[in-house]
Amino acid sequence: MAALIKDILKLHAASQDVVVRGWVRTKRELKNLTFIEVNDGSSLTGIQCTFDHPQADLSTGASVEVHGKLVPSPAKGQAVELAAQSVTVIGKADPESYPLQKKRHSFEFLREIAHLRARTTTFGAVARVRSRLAFAVHEFFHQNGFQYVHTPIITASDAEGAGALFQVTTLNPEEIARSGTAPDYQRDFFGKKSFLTVSGQLEAETYATALSRVYTFGPTFRAENSNTTRHLAEFWMIEPELAFADLNDLMRLTEDFLKFLLNTVLSDCEADLHFFDTHIEKGILASLKAVLDSHFTHIPYTEALIELEKAAADTFEFKPVWGCDLQTEHERFLTEKVAGGPVILSDYPKEIKAFYMKLNPDGKTVRAMDLLVPRLGEIIGGSQREDDLAVLEGRMRELGMNLHEYRWYLDLRRYGSVPHAGFGMGFERLVQYVTGMANIRDVIPYPRAVGQADF
Amino acid sequence: MAALIKDILKLHAASQDVVVRGWVRTKRELKNLTFIEVNDGSSLTGIQCTFDHPQADLSTGASVEVHGKLVPSPAKGQAVELAAQSVTVIGKADPESYPLQKKRHSFEFLREIAHLRARTTTFGAVARVRSRLAFAVHEFFHQNGFQYVHTPIITASDAEGAGALFQVTTLNPEEIARSGTAPDYQRDFFGKKSFLTVSGQLEAETYATALSRVYTFGPTFRAENSNTTRHLAEFWMIEPELAFADLNDLMRLTEDFLKFLLNTVLSDCEADLHFFDTHIEKGILASLKAVLDSHFTHIPYTEALIELEKAAADTFEFKPVWGCDLQTEHERFLTEKVAGGPVILSDYPKEIKAFYMKLNPDGKTVRAMDLLVPRLGEIIGGSQREDDLAVLEGRMRELGMNLHEYRWYLDLRRYGSVPHAGFGMGFERLVQYVTGMANIRDVIPYPRAVGQADF
Repeated sequence: MAALIKDILKLHAASQDVVVRGWVRTKRELKNLTFIEVNDGSSLTGIQCTFDHPQADLSTGASVEVHGKLVPSPAKGQAVELAAQSVTVIGKADPESYPLQKKRHSFEFLREIAHLRARTTTFGAVARVRSRLAFAVHEFFHQNGFQYVHTPIITASDAEGAGALFQVTTLNPEEIARSGTAPDYQRDFFGKKSFLTVSGQLEAETYATALSRVYTFGPTFRAENSNTTRHLAEFWMIEPELAFADLNDLMRLTEDFLKFLLNTVLSDCEADLHFFDTHIEKGILASLKAVLDSHFTHIPYTEALIELEKAAADTFEFKPVWGCDLQTEHERFLTEKVAGGPVILSDYPKEIKAFYMKLNPDGKTVRAMDLLVPRLGEIIGGSQREDDLAVLEGRMRELGMNLHEYRWYLDLRRYGSVPHAGFGMGFERLVQYVTGMANIRDVIPYPRAVGQADF
Repeated sequence: MAALIKDILKLHAASQDVVVRGWVRTKRELKNLTFIEVNDGSSLTGIQCTFDHPQADLSTGASVEVHGKLVPSPAKGQAVELAAQSVTVIGKADPESYPLQKKRHSFEFLREIAHLRARTTTFGAVARVRSRLAFAVHEFFHQNGFQYVHTPIITASDAEGAGALFQVTTLNPEEIARSGTAPDYQRDFFGKKSFLTVSGQLEAETYATALSRVYTFGPTFRAENSNTTRHLAEFWMIEPELAFADLNDLMRLTEDFLKFLLNTVLSDCEADLHFFDTHIEKGILASLKAVLDSHFTHIPYTEALIELEKAAADTFEFKPVWGCDLQTEHERFLTEKVAGGPVILSDYPKEIKAFYMKLNPDGKTVRAMDLLVPRLGEIIGGSQREDDLAVLEGRMRELGMNLHEYRWYLDLRRYGSVPHAGFGMGFERLVQYVTGMANIRDVIPYPRAVGQADF
């Protein structure tokens, strides 16, 4: 494999011969001198190549191979440049039709040409930061003794009733319409009605109670008809699950995890993050560094409510009421005014949380936690799980759940039950948080949402 | 977090106090002494704990917390053991009903209790090797300048017509049956007929032609009604895609990649691999090491056919014929008899390969390659891609494909086209290859196949 531009840029210019392959980003012509910036996507900046003989077809987007000598650059902002000896155009890009010209394009427009947008500065940077964050996720868990578990994508169990589901089928809807008879799911591929998963948590618990520390990192799906900048129908989720652990262990893991991720991108994606700080959201670098330097404040929900109630009557649009979910304005108040940094809220009323969360001795709250960060709000949500069979069955009956459907999940409490805990983090939210990209559709290569499954 | 047993086992026994948390695997009672082996899934072997006071509820599968002193072990095969001071049962496992008793269970039986099988020695080892291999995949690509790209799972494009598809829908089949009118896909979630992906390659190409080196690692799906030990309806696939690269670069990448993976598990999963070598498939360790030490032989398909034709008439059940896919017996002959090691077969007849593979100047063969390894056969398949717009369009027309559907894919050849290449590797095949597990359903936590989507 030829050298990447990011590695060439690290070389000391000593007139050595190098070969650069990439795509032309910009071209300037000055009397007898031509400057092109060649980028291969390996780093934010490309390499400037200069040469003195005119060359046809060297327009933005053309792929080129440049042979030359690496020399110190007289230009600002770059240590080296390439004094080209030969420039070969590999593939042209007709300036009349190539959609990515030098001018800035709206993100809306770029979403329509998602197959080309990674060639832009912004989406190249998003892709690199996303990739580095994903690897950091694996590094963190691997270094800490967690096993990566691939939980199933297609499932016949409805999980936690966590919202609208996509059905997966090989039955032919056209045929069903023609026959006019109800679909026979015994003839469907899996022999029963099947869906795309909304979470790998329950299956991850089965592995945590065998391997002690596990995590999932895979796609999850919500068929919710919400056309917002914060929701996708298909998104990637990270779900660690930890045996022999309680809520305090989980809160420690949460803080260590987020700090590890931020530390990694701050040191490994410096140029890309600087770009986001300058062009996408001013101050984002300082805000990430502040989180890294902070100690996460722990506040039980009930105490948080007291803090919120203390605030002036006109502070909030929605009055904070014990037993209700907090609004974004409440969360912002807690992080920005009360704690001045990240907050882990815990011990929520059981009514607003999932059935599997461990009941506190008060009988009213559960050992849940959400991590709220300034600027974004909730980024991680988790809980200690109910490990007492009788209590869990009681709660499931209260909620009218079918215990037989969950007998495998209940087995974990029947045989060698242990205290355990886990959280979920939407990976795209993390990428948004780190890059400052406002629309979640701009931090995943091919976003899926209502009416949108192109490419 | 408490220490994992794998780390405790590495400590030098100097009578220090340690705490062990895990599940009882075996118990033996000898006069006044009780021995339990406690395993937490962090390593193949657990730790032996000895104590002199009888303790109720200490049966196989029970979860325990043991406090004691780490001391040198008089027993064979372990350096240290725990002289227990206290043993606390956290969660019982009723010996009358707990399905995993000391005796060996058939893999068929364990598939029915897939939620518990990771607690067995075999499936714990499979899970650890799988996890380590997955991380090694990310390490290899990260170290070599590849960006991880999440290609879409749901897609409205039929990809390469690579087999039967699962449809993804929010239309209600019961309602369609009642109404008796054809489904209106404009009212479906994505506004058109949508499916689960069979490959991320085409989308990966869009990122490779922007970032130079990318890879995917995600679930893919085939709705094929094949009830075999080698096929899953849902499986994980790794697909690197490399710009400015030809078939030779790809063959080098293939060899480097597989060797990196084998090297990693051979050094990091020694105990687990030794277990597979002893209990699952004798000789597997030697066979993996032989691949590591080999140089992969490159043979063009046409030359391979000549070798096969040279063999005695009664060597094969199926006569090798130029233009046909090779049978497993042919592949084995090439690896075992001709090359005596891994073989990269290349330059296949275009008729038996996909539309996007680069046509050779002979007009008859394409720049495809398959890596065949002894014992398993094909483990990796890839190709250089057709980067010439006119040739690609011509081939697609020949095959009756809808060019308009693929206009975004063709754009990659229209604007800044570059030579590029990539391969696909089914991750479960790799895990089978490394562990020797005969049935692919035993190397993924929750296998999905015809009639099987439980848990």
